[in-house]
Amino acid sequence: MTHTNQIVIDKVRKSRIDSTDFDNLTFGKTFSDHMLECTWKNGSWGDVEIKPYGPIMVEPSCKVFHYGQAIFEGMKAFKDDQDDVFLFRPADNWIRFNASAKRLAMPEVPEEIFMDGLKKLVELDKDWVRKGDGQSLYLRPFMIASENGVAAAPSTEYKFMVVMSPARAYYRGEVRVVIATSYSRAADGGVGYAKAAGNYAASFYPNNLALEEGFQQIIWTDAASHEYLEEAGTMNIFVRIGDKLLTSPHNDRILNGVTRRSVIQLAKDMGIEVEERRVSINEINEAARAGELKEMFGSGTAAVIVPIKGYKHLEFVHELPTMEHSYAERFKKELNDIQYNRTEDPHQWRVKI
Amino acid sequence: MTHTNQIVIDKVRKSRIDSTDFDNLTFGKTFSDHMLECTWKNGSWGDVEIKPYGPIMVEPSCKVFHYGQAIFEGMKAFKDDQDDVFLFRPADNWIRFNASAKRLAMPEVPEEIFMDGLKKLVELDKDWVRKGDGQSLYLRPFMIASENGVAAAPSTEYKFMVVMSPARAYYRGEVRVVIATSYSRAADGGVGYAKAAGNYAASFYPNNLALEEGFQQIIWTDAASHEYLEEAGTMNIFVRIGDKLLTSPHNDRILNGVTRRSVIQLAKDMGIEVEERRVSINEINEAARAGELKEMFGSGTAAVIVPIKGYKHLEFVHELPTMEHSYAERFKKELNDIQYNRTEDPHQWRVKI
Ligand SMILES: Cc1ncc(COP(=O)(O)O)c(C=O)c1O
Ligand SMILES: Cc1ncc(COP(=O)(O)O)c(C=O)c1O
Repeated sequence: MTHTNQIVIDKVRKSRIDSTDFDNLTFGKTFSDHMLECTWKNGSWGDVEIKPYGPIMVEPSCKVFHYGQAIFEGMKAFKDDQDDVFLFRPADNWIRFNASAKRLAMPEVPEEIFMDGLKKLVELDKDWVRKGDGQSLYLRPFMIASENGVAAAPSTEYKFMVVMSPARAYYRGEVRVVIATSYSRAADGGVGYAKAAGNYAASFYPNNLALEEGFQQIIWTDAASHEYLEEAGTMNIFVRIGDKLLTSPHNDRILNGVTRRSVIQLAKDMGIEVEERRVSINEINEAARAGELKEMFGSGTAAVIVPIKGYKHLEFVHELPTMEHSYAERFKKELNDIQYNRTEDPHQWRVKI
Repeated sequence: MTHTNQIVIDKVRKSRIDSTDFDNLTFGKTFSDHMLECTWKNGSWGDVEIKPYGPIMVEPSCKVFHYGQAIFEGMKAFKDDQDDVFLFRPADNWIRFNASAKRLAMPEVPEEIFMDGLKKLVELDKDWVRKGDGQSLYLRPFMIASENGVAAAPSTEYKFMVVMSPARAYYRGEVRVVIATSYSRAADGGVGYAKAAGNYAASFYPNNLALEEGFQQIIWTDAASHEYLEEAGTMNIFVRIGDKLLTSPHNDRILNGVTRRSVIQLAKDMGIEVEERRVSINEINEAARAGELKEMFGSGTAAVIVPIKGYKHLEFVHELPTMEHSYAERFKKELNDIQYNRTEDPHQWRVKI
């Protein structure tokens, strides 16, 4: 018996868009008119419901509150000058979502639910995607355990949902980082490569310590030795030593970023030498001392590319030089040009809604 | 300005107790009449509300769903033959709860809210604590991030809640375990020592693999080398080699169990030699081969003491002997006798409600 999951749409009676101040948005605080909800029960997914954004009722014994089965994705929709709306490599997010689901013992979400549902939802709320550089609609697909019960075992019920939030640039101000030397984000054989909710909660306290010291982010290193570069809280990390670009290979501790993957491809397209390999903090410090460390930057959907102005590692504090035509700038411009349909798209990354 | 948090009680109109089948309870599925809720906002805790158990309204952007700030505790209330109700070392749970809170960048819960609230709640629902061996009321204090917003930063609002579930013995049937050799539960410098929701979600997939192989649990080893014994999913682990009892020291990867601590004390009281030190899997395997491995058992609030009948480590499969007057049995009896007020309580572990 094959069952086709229908998309059932219940529209808002009155849009909230006119009362939304798009010039003064706090990231992730304002939501578009509609959301998507789909329930997994008795081994299968039900219909996709698109309905007004609003609260849900959950019992306090709902398993997500106790055992943390919760995963998410972060994506963006962009609008070009002709009012066409595009997603950026959405299939990559769908595939990663299901890799996260598998590792957290949650059911995978079929393409027609994730992708067709998402497209329908964006189409319905397309007025929430604003034109102009830095403007986008941030899409947040997520899944939570929804069975009630406080026994430590995988949930038998799940909710897949999508909410959407109009966004401008994510980071403001200059970013300086602390390189982790005692706390860590993920274990070998753990869930670091998954976009699991618990990974983020685990990073907040060490990040608060960095903030107290006057740094905005932590760069994680491997838990076993703290000798190798891994990633930041919500970004992958690149360093430019001389004219070469370096980034950590992805492994079971690191989120394999869509932006990271795109930067690596763009670098190759631009003829920039790029190496995916273990990068030791020692190598970075040496390069810094020798004046060879030209750039550090983070890559991620929310922030796109974030230049890192300086870092601290144990007692060593280093300020990065200001580069003309920096790689960071070039990647950011190229990525944005592709995302906003202002240039060719040789790798078919844009998906028109 | 000092503010005393009041306890505001809203009682159910009709108890559900008469329609509860105490002889056929699935662990963690049935809840008592009342629950406790207390909200942290603008930097302080509000009043403690005790009210009918029931669903809460949350927005889909509620931070707990996205960034996993969620911690819990597991405790039990016991009833003696005179209908007096006791908690077991509840201050230990309160202290551990706040250690978890700190690591997850959540506010600590003051003693008068956690302890006085909990006692009031148990008192109100004391009919849900049944008499008789194995009967108890399982108490589940927990805290979740409750701010709405999908930016990856600590929540500015939290809910502390307590729900209670009548329980019988947790594990049924014989327990055999797989010793982890590739997956891991916690990183050095991570959150393993906290009762963080995400730790449990991370363990379900590897545990499912063990179940598929016909084993009920995984015994975790250190993520770096998989050479040393750590703990099980919801239990600390003891091994008896010859007449000596061994257990892993607690560290930042291992939950420092209240039952574990109690077993160590009881062992000392009974004149059993007990060592808290790194125990290598190699040492366990060698002892098994030499016939010196007499017992393995888990300790935890839900299950008290769980004898382990056999284990698998890589290709090595071993069946434990059946011991008369096993340590496991002796500890279980002694713990239960203290919990149900059937014996002296030399260490003042019982707290009367
Ligand atoms: C831990 C972590 N690393 C890296 C990234 C960057 O991934 P992407 O480029 O796919 O957004 C993210 C998410 O955005 C993340 O949460
Ligand atoms: C991971 C883990 N280890 C050990 C234990 C045992 O701790 P306790 O004896 O305090 O219940 C628990 C919880 O019950 C646990 O969740």
